[in-house]
Amino acid sequence: MKKIEYTPIGIIHSPFKEPKGVPIQAAVSKEKGTIEIFPEYEEGLKDLDKFSHIILIFHFHLSKKGKLLAIPYMDTKERGIFSIRGPSRPNPIGISTVKLLKIAKNILFIENVDIVDGTPLLDIKPYIPKFDNRDTENIGWLKGNIQKLPNKKDDGRFRK
Amino acid sequence: MKKIEYTPIGIIHSPFKEPKGVPIQAAVSKEKGTIEIFPEYEEGLKDLDKFSHIILIFHFHLSKKGKLLAIPYMDTKERGIFSIRGPSRPNPIGISTVKLLKIAKNILFIENVDIVDGTPLLDIKPYIPKFDNRDTENIGWLKGNIQKLPNKKDDGRFRK
Repeated sequence: MKKIEYTPIGIIHSPFKEPKGVPIQAAVSKEKGTIEIFPEYEEGLKDLDKFSHIILIFHFHLSKKGKLLAIPYMDTKERGIFSIRGPSRPNPIGISTVKLLKIAKNILFIENVDIVDGTPLLDIKPYIPKFDNRDTENIGWLKGNIQKLPNKKDDGRFRK
Repeated sequence: MKKIEYTPIGIIHSPFKEPKGVPIQAAVSKEKGTIEIFPEYEEGLKDLDKFSHIILIFHFHLSKKGKLLAIPYMDTKERGIFSIRGPSRPNPIGISTVKLLKIAKNILFIENVDIVDGTPLLDIKPYIPKFDNRDTENIGWLKGNIQKLPNKKDDGRFRK
């Protein structure tokens, strides 16, 4: 099938200069960061400052080429890549829901950053609980591992 | 900034042959569909069948080129494109959280489909409430409009 091409709309800045040490999920990160939206997209930020949370869609630019099986940070067994959230995937697309603190012109100030500095941003969507929250019955291999979340950091295993 | 290239991992099949008439969010759709994962990615589905919900990341292949302001389905005013969820965006990437009913080889059976038939799929991630659910304070322009959600359908306005 034919390839799909996207152009970054901005760059995410964070205190994390390398993948190693980054919190593995936004939900457990207290770190702050900024997003520089390229000036040609600034008009698209209108009305966004009234939302408390936003979904970032970005490109894992420092991840090595993905295999179809990988050992996730929170387990010791190899799992199918579509059942884990790690960055080395067939299409290395990341999603993070972060708190939006404020917007000044083309700069967004955010909290809950689990993203390495310099990451290319592809899209922003407003987070809306009635759209995005789910009650689930099953969380697969994470069931016995979810308690590890608060203290888990990227250990560099997916770095290219 | 340089372009980023992705290759679809599969195709989403649904009862919706055109954008017009599609429920505007997975959260309010009862429709079923299937996803055909291309055989070369089938191994990556291992362990996924133990999750009840999955996040689909896909390409809005039928949307017209995005402008930076647009009138969303659930409002009557023009809003910044990053504050709405419509498909005509600088990078036309969609996300939907759907219920996973079962997997048979490379075919996923899903429910809550808000996606048009033939949509190229870029990634699948397991949905994990502790990663993905948020309590938010503000939902911007949607505050006075959210009650419209259950009955809203795509009216074709973003069709190319």
